[in-house]
Amino acid sequence: MEIKVLRQILEANNEAAAQNRALLAGTGVTALNLISAPGAGKTSLLEKAIPLLKERYRVAVLEGDIATTRDSERIAALEVPVIQLLTNGSCHLEATLVSRALAELALQDLDIIFIENVGNIVCPAEFDLGEAAKVGILSVAEGHDKPAKYPLLFHELSALVLNKIDLLDYVNFDMEAFLTDFKGLNDRAPLFEVSCRTGQGVDRFVGWVANLLEGNSQTFHNMS
Amino acid sequence: MEIKVLRQILEANNEAAAQNRALLAGTGVTALNLISAPGAGKTSLLEKAIPLLKERYRVAVLEGDIATTRDSERIAALEVPVIQLLTNGSCHLEATLVSRALAELALQDLDIIFIENVGNIVCPAEFDLGEAAKVGILSVAEGHDKPAKYPLLFHELSALVLNKIDLLDYVNFDMEAFLTDFKGLNDRAPLFEVSCRTGQGVDRFVGWVANLLEGNSQTFHNMS
Repeated sequence: MEIKVLRQILEANNEAAAQNRALLAGTGVTALNLISAPGAGKTSLLEKAIPLLKERYRVAVLEGDIATTRDSERIAALEVPVIQLLTNGSCHLEATLVSRALAELALQDLDIIFIENVGNIVCPAEFDLGEAAKVGILSVAEGHDKPAKYPLLFHELSALVLNKIDLLDYVNFDMEAFLTDFKGLNDRAPLFEVSCRTGQGVDRFVGWVANLLEGNSQTFHNMS
Repeated sequence: MEIKVLRQILEANNEAAAQNRALLAGTGVTALNLISAPGAGKTSLLEKAIPLLKERYRVAVLEGDIATTRDSERIAALEVPVIQLLTNGSCHLEATLVSRALAELALQDLDIIFIENVGNIVCPAEFDLGEAAKVGILSVAEGHDKPAKYPLLFHELSALVLNKIDLLDYVNFDMEAFLTDFKGLNDRAPLFEVSCRTGQGVDRFVGWVANLLEGNSQTFHNMS
């Protein structure tokens, strides 16, 4: 019974995600689904990356939270469109909530939408939102064992940002063990060592996003 | 439809939790449900606290994980009984899984059972396991805004361990804002500032656990 209902929920979600994906492709907008544990640095990464991306691209943000609009306020200070997605207790974003937000945005005036998921590395990995790619953020303060312990997310990622690299000297993070586990789960996703506090390494992540946008826009133009 | 099924799941869980609670009370065992985000330090706290508690109390651990038995191996090294609860993808422990583990333990030979939940501060807060108290762990590296953003958990806690206090100088953690938010949600739970890395403050947490055990044991004796 539970399993059947879960399947129905996931199927309904996948249908809405496919519609979002078609809508985004049709308007040439790339959506990235940012997933991490609470406090790993999703909003901080956007605060550092968006000012660089804004120079060349038109950016918007969908801000997923269980409660409060604090992150939206931080993003709004960057002067890009932001829509708050309040889940009211739910532990992940679903594609239908994203659909409603997409309907409120002028997609033709955008190149990229960052979708900041709820802080959770379990449930969000199961719900496709229609994004072009999932980007994970892991803080070194969380420890090197997280890929092995939460394998689905790390397997699904198109890129991983390893954040708070400035704390490496002060935490027990075994880089070699981390790389072995992560590469074992996912040998395609590039890894960006970043400190959102100092800004170190953010430019490399921004370069990856820009490449993705150019590629998607190329595909789009070839398709049209 | 979805809401009705969720209610059924929660009701079934609450029934199993009530049975666990009765079983534990009847045998004079105190269970603590440890809840935190991934990498906040649940296992590290047990690694520091159990050697101190073991001097006076008989301790066992139920180790909840989605995948791997790594944390169980760390706990087994402390030479206390440990049972691995693998959720196989699920984002929280449920009371029925705990029931099965309790049936495998010699409860009459125990004083305290730590139940380490899956690393997640959303879903575990909704599922009663039959514990005497929920203990939260928050790492200062996660940021001061977590109580406001994940209010249900912080409201439900009987105690909060603020871990990685040794990193305070290296992260942007506004203690005053944190205390305002946390005390606004929960004015009963004591707060323990701890570094599981250096051991600082663990003794105060252990003192609180010992008090709880003495109180529960008192209640138990009064009841009998």
